[in-house]
Amino acid sequence: MKLARLGPPGAEKPALIEAGGRARDLSGIVPDITAEALGSGLLQRLAALDPSALPYLPDGERFGPPVRGVGKFLCVGLNYRDHAAESGIAIPEEPVLFMKATSAICGANDAIVIPRGSLKTDWEVELGVVIGRTARDIPVETALAHVAGYLLVNDLSERAFQLERGGQWVKGKSCDTFGPIGPFLVTTEEIPDPQALSLWLEVNGTRRQNGHTSDMVFDVAFLISYISRFMTLCPGDIISTGTPAGVGLGLRPPVYLGPGDRMVLGIDGEAGVSLGCQTQICRAWAQ
Amino acid sequence: MKLARLGPPGAEKPALIEAGGRARDLSGIVPDITAEALGSGLLQRLAALDPSALPYLPDGERFGPPVRGVGKFLCVGLNYRDHAAESGIAIPEEPVLFMKATSAICGANDAIVIPRGSLKTDWEVELGVVIGRTARDIPVETALAHVAGYLLVNDLSERAFQLERGGQWVKGKSCDTFGPIGPFLVTTEEIPDPQALSLWLEVNGTRRQNGHTSDMVFDVAFLISYISRFMTLCPGDIISTGTPAGVGLGLRPPVYLGPGDRMVLGIDGEAGVSLGCQTQICRAWAQ
Repeated sequence: MKLARLGPPGAEKPALIEAGGRARDLSGIVPDITAEALGSGLLQRLAALDPSALPYLPDGERFGPPVRGVGKFLCVGLNYRDHAAESGIAIPEEPVLFMKATSAICGANDAIVIPRGSLKTDWEVELGVVIGRTARDIPVETALAHVAGYLLVNDLSERAFQLERGGQWVKGKSCDTFGPIGPFLVTTEEIPDPQALSLWLEVNGTRRQNGHTSDMVFDVAFLISYISRFMTLCPGDIISTGTPAGVGLGLRPPVYLGPGDRMVLGIDGEAGVSLGCQTQICRAWAQ
Repeated sequence: MKLARLGPPGAEKPALIEAGGRARDLSGIVPDITAEALGSGLLQRLAALDPSALPYLPDGERFGPPVRGVGKFLCVGLNYRDHAAESGIAIPEEPVLFMKATSAICGANDAIVIPRGSLKTDWEVELGVVIGRTARDIPVETALAHVAGYLLVNDLSERAFQLERGGQWVKGKSCDTFGPIGPFLVTTEEIPDPQALSLWLEVNGTRRQNGHTSDMVFDVAFLISYISRFMTLCPGDIISTGTPAGVGLGLRPPVYLGPGDRMVLGIDGEAGVSLGCQTQICRAWAQ
């Protein structure tokens, strides 16, 4: 299933996206797609539905974040060999974790606000994993059974805020609009192997990132198991699994985003597997 | 006002704590004390109540976290001069921010679970600031108007997970039960000056931390303004403002917590001002 939340910010309706792209209205079935609902059997209920009985939503509605009430937005740093190399950092011996503020979450195609004073806003296409079942100190072998689905993430980053403003990365990762997710949450039966996906990102029509999840240093199952030793993962939590080479910081000379710049990014697999596509236009900060 | 949530985990009732310590039941007035409610005028409504008309709750109930649905748990590192010195690190030129997972939040006197494999679980008494009104790029001068109230935080930390396991601090800060908050949220009219508070912590009866918020490198108003330049602060967000000297890592030799160890901590001001006291017993990890 491809699940989405469609409509203006704060008034999104839950929806099921058909293969052709049209959206069926789920609001007669469930009030919303929330972290709490994911933990209460939402996916099982929806899988048992006959979608053909549901009314269509109008075309062209905004894609909001496909899950509301995300509790934790965890990110993995330097998890592709080529990105560690371009950053000039050794491949980590164990996963590098950091957090993004959940207030950074926005819809897949919402405008990106360049923060006030920013000169180094950068892009990062990533595979996001949405937890569906509580995971506390779980083994690698059963880790994928805790996944509700996958989604596309742009882990926007202000490199000066992240690296030149004292200590930890959170300041450069958490600005408002720095976390577009979606357009949809694709449930696991459509993604049989999360390590068989291509990731790509273009800026103003130039291909900047071209990666494949088989190049991850630590795969999705390992990451879930690993993180679950340090903290309980709850339904609705997102793990963004790192970005491949080609970010602005890694270019010579570096290239950063400014008002008017346009990003297009996506994740696709074989045989029609897809997490969809995001398009974002950057705009200047305004009070 | 001193606001609390009393009862077993997941079934807490909102309560008003009287000067003598007895608890009035607020559940006939508001369903719960949540981040969302703080943003919707909860404090103004409660301030207008006649508490003497409310029924008492039984004595001896568990103190749950005084706010439910915290969106961000932000922490400030090295914000007391003496703690930076004991850590062997220069006083930072601007605030060091990091995040704690909100899943680490627990009640003030709940048991602390020593994580599996932990040899370096440590304590940190801190002043926590709870945001009451959305703050986005606000000036220092008006920052305190965005505060709902203050609470006591023990920012528990696993030093090996934090410092020896690759990169960022979040792994050592986010373990389950590593975020006791409360017992109550004390609203701002009771805390005229957040820089006039004493913080203390004892382990097994030995005084380990003795600090004062006047020794902060960056004061509460500055921290709120500063963080609000990087991300929007929302009602219910907590900023834990750093710990004074005397943590286990800073002792020679270091001292860490194990099963059975008992912490008692508190924050008090002049003339009866108090954020109350926490008592926690450590226990071993169990699946």
